[in-house]
Amino acid sequence: MNPFETDLNQNRANYDPLSPLTFLERSASVYPDKTAMIHGDWSYSYSEFYDRCRRLASALSSRGIGKGDTVSIIAPNVPALLESHFGVPMTGAVLNALNTRLDAETLAFILDHAECKLLITDREYSDVMRKALALCSCDPVVIDIDDPLGDGGDLIGDMTYEAFIADGDPGFAWSGPEDEWQAISLNYTSGTTGDPKGVVYHHRGAYLAATGNSLSWDMTKHPIYLWTLPMFHCNGWCFPWTITAVGGTHVCLRKVEADGIFEAMGRFGVDHMCGAPIVLSMLINTTDDNKAKAKSGIKVMVAAAPPPAAVLAEMDRMGFDVTHVYGLTECYGPAVYCDWNDNWNSKSVEDRAALKARQGVRYHALSELDVLDPETMQPVPRDGNTMGEVMMRGNLIMKGYLKNPGTTGKAFEGDWFRTGDLGVIHEDGYLELRDRSKDIIISGGENISTIEVEGVLYRHPAVLEAAVVARPDEKWGETPCAFVTLRDGAEADEAGIIAFCRDNMAHFKCPKAVVFDELPKTSTGKVQKFVLRERAKNL
Amino acid sequence: MNPFETDLNQNRANYDPLSPLTFLERSASVYPDKTAMIHGDWSYSYSEFYDRCRRLASALSSRGIGKGDTVSIIAPNVPALLESHFGVPMTGAVLNALNTRLDAETLAFILDHAECKLLITDREYSDVMRKALALCSCDPVVIDIDDPLGDGGDLIGDMTYEAFIADGDPGFAWSGPEDEWQAISLNYTSGTTGDPKGVVYHHRGAYLAATGNSLSWDMTKHPIYLWTLPMFHCNGWCFPWTITAVGGTHVCLRKVEADGIFEAMGRFGVDHMCGAPIVLSMLINTTDDNKAKAKSGIKVMVAAAPPPAAVLAEMDRMGFDVTHVYGLTECYGPAVYCDWNDNWNSKSVEDRAALKARQGVRYHALSELDVLDPETMQPVPRDGNTMGEVMMRGNLIMKGYLKNPGTTGKAFEGDWFRTGDLGVIHEDGYLELRDRSKDIIISGGENISTIEVEGVLYRHPAVLEAAVVARPDEKWGETPCAFVTLRDGAEADEAGIIAFCRDNMAHFKCPKAVVFDELPKTSTGKVQKFVLRERAKNL
Repeated sequence: MNPFETDLNQNRANYDPLSPLTFLERSASVYPDKTAMIHGDWSYSYSEFYDRCRRLASALSSRGIGKGDTVSIIAPNVPALLESHFGVPMTGAVLNALNTRLDAETLAFILDHAECKLLITDREYSDVMRKALALCSCDPVVIDIDDPLGDGGDLIGDMTYEAFIADGDPGFAWSGPEDEWQAISLNYTSGTTGDPKGVVYHHRGAYLAATGNSLSWDMTKHPIYLWTLPMFHCNGWCFPWTITAVGGTHVCLRKVEADGIFEAMGRFGVDHMCGAPIVLSMLINTTDDNKAKAKSGIKVMVAAAPPPAAVLAEMDRMGFDVTHVYGLTECYGPAVYCDWNDNWNSKSVEDRAALKARQGVRYHALSELDVLDPETMQPVPRDGNTMGEVMMRGNLIMKGYLKNPGTTGKAFEGDWFRTGDLGVIHEDGYLELRDRSKDIIISGGENISTIEVEGVLYRHPAVLEAAVVARPDEKWGETPCAFVTLRDGAEADEAGIIAFCRDNMAHFKCPKAVVFDELPKTSTGKVQKFVLRERAKNL
Repeated sequence: MNPFETDLNQNRANYDPLSPLTFLERSASVYPDKTAMIHGDWSYSYSEFYDRCRRLASALSSRGIGKGDTVSIIAPNVPALLESHFGVPMTGAVLNALNTRLDAETLAFILDHAECKLLITDREYSDVMRKALALCSCDPVVIDIDDPLGDGGDLIGDMTYEAFIADGDPGFAWSGPEDEWQAISLNYTSGTTGDPKGVVYHHRGAYLAATGNSLSWDMTKHPIYLWTLPMFHCNGWCFPWTITAVGGTHVCLRKVEADGIFEAMGRFGVDHMCGAPIVLSMLINTTDDNKAKAKSGIKVMVAAAPPPAAVLAEMDRMGFDVTHVYGLTECYGPAVYCDWNDNWNSKSVEDRAALKARQGVRYHALSELDVLDPETMQPVPRDGNTMGEVMMRGNLIMKGYLKNPGTTGKAFEGDWFRTGDLGVIHEDGYLELRDRSKDIIISGGENISTIEVEGVLYRHPAVLEAAVVARPDEKWGETPCAFVTLRDGAEADEAGIIAFCRDNMAHFKCPKAVVFDELPKTSTGKVQKFVLRERAKNL
């Protein structure tokens, strides 16, 4: 008999399921008067934040919403969406934040698949949501967000969000999950083919991802956080919970554009923000007037696609402190970050940018991160060269895909979460992505990383944005085809771009064709390579 | 059927028991060359730290040590004790760090009660451990720490620690706990009456306490941490795991005395340390030469007894950044801290010290902290005045007491962990301790907080240390009796001290007797009030 496992059971005094909801209750108790949220001229304290979330939970409960139910919401980064991250799961229900760029058909599919019971919809999206509601089979209660800062649209629901929560009880006695494995949110991946998959997060993972952000980003308390990252994207990478845990201020933002961002920086003293590389591009390609509004040392977390080294170098010059992170919807957003090594400080701006463009090392709460040969499941050598599939294990991995055991099983095949991304491990243990499995170009039997080719293109002074895809080729199988947008006023032609590439990388990797065009993007700023592959095929 | 609980089970890819052991593996992988430990002229990197811990685990395993076994260790803050925090639980065994000030009889009791299988003992404690081993019934393997920086003593075991781990395999394939509720350590409380109780910690709690320290203390990565707090005390408040998680440097220290502390500050750039108020007294009552060695802004976490406001004020003046924390062995050390409110910055040094002397608010990972009427279990009003018993709930509470279901049950009666401490909750929600239940003085039916009386005594310019206890009194039941140590060269008499108290507090709370004497202390710097109560009774 093991004495350490005898008469030493869990009880209400010594065990509590982990949940990020506890962060709000705590901050409202410890920092009641601290500003929790700013939205234009409107702001409120942690005490009021907590009251509003409990009102929401109470109003939902009185409509019969509870454990196992789905509440969907479509909105830009406004207070109602922030509050939903607490108020919805306080009832035991699951938050389903919808991607605002989706079409009506996809939204209808999601509402049905998620079995949506109640929908909160911002006036700005009334057109698409009216269509989606007409298309779907489910029949949710519809609540409108009538944000005074929003433009256009109609009220299409039963009542406004403010009226809805006004009926709720700010003293509502919510309780946390009975089990920390209970679902807290449902995020559909913007799959480029096939139906969207519903990624299910649980309270334990959300708690660990939220504190993980703080630990990895060296955050101290009371940050002023600007919402440049969509909250519908992996629950804003769990930052609604992180910023609340550290008693910070959420600065809401309806539209992600340079003027609004720099205005918020100047007006509210923003010191932290997250976003896709497109946000970095906005920051560096703006007016001097705007640039003057940002204080030095603003911490920026960037993910989605690996930011080109040239962009990182320019951010560095402008005084932003950029941390590059990597993740997927399936791992609560970032679960890997490029942990900065002080020994790199003395390197050139370009070398620092190249080091920073690597994806890096795992969050504390991610148990394992490795690059494996997907056939043998053996780790690749740490040589910065041998490619394999990036795989992960640990508490930052989703429960699985909703009502999709087949795909869930495939994602977890071999007891690892298979990201579908290809990468290498450098000698120092840092991960560097080379491509999505489906993006890699195989030319004459040689693998070509499109990310590597894009990195060279971004160093060309005339190039604003670049994306490289495979183009079918009779001789080589595939060859690289580049799509490029030029900077305002800059000039370059196909021959010049190709010559620049040949001067800077192995010739077999160079684009054989260069197309000057706008890049099609997803709502989260990722280039839609499947669209470009179609275009390349038809050249 | 709840779709969120169907086909979405835990598996090896998406679930891993929480354990602080993962922090070492991670830091060794991310920061292999960073200095992990300094001990005099000896230092080693994270890579070597991890190797040594795995060697230890391997050597223990090959001796048959595994799950459910206890490994005891008695040592000052030396590398072997730090390594034991990882190497011992890596085998599944439980670490039992012994209080170095205990007598042979108590140590023998603990070795037997813990069913010690292997003992690691520093040469400095060979005399007492030889006696303890002769007294106890168990027959552990004995390993000697033969630290070149240690003075005196003999080798009493089978081999030295360095020889023991030299046989171990640095590639040892350890695995974490199968269940995060598994025991990681066993810490005996220095009960003032009755047999010591063995407090059992689990991996989950140790993980959350370790990351909780970082979150509450606003720690960023790579701190230089000086080991002024005994590692045997609540596992050094879990800082062996915290500092390792954030890739910091552990600066070992055999003897906690001013010269050694300031030397380490000057030599290694120490920026963080913890300790009992006695350590603060050392820092403020030292030579100017010493004081010049400390850089400004060193962060000091202080706990055990509430530090007198006068001591905190002096620390503030010297440029130390003191955070006051509160906890007990039963809650992994600190679980409550005086979270600083920026609005208090403009207050006077004295007012700031008084605010800082309050125990404060709960760690993020502690679910509930309150002061309840122990009879009705109702919370006391938040008036800073109504006393009740401090109670806690959450993941920072022990599994229970080893082989002691009766006492465990009493500690958790009513579904709360009952601390036995008396306190009040201020209007702003901050806890302030008033006394241990057994320390409170009841005079003429009025409760007198000995901590409050001591706070006034510490403001007297001649007083170096003060402790107040109840003295039996025919008329009043009890009256306060003060024991006081004067500063070097300072003079004061009983009448003068009492007059000072009457000028500064309600008269019924003033000491009726003042005794000038050394204060008896426990190994952790707590005044032994039971000794003083005996003296007061016999005055």
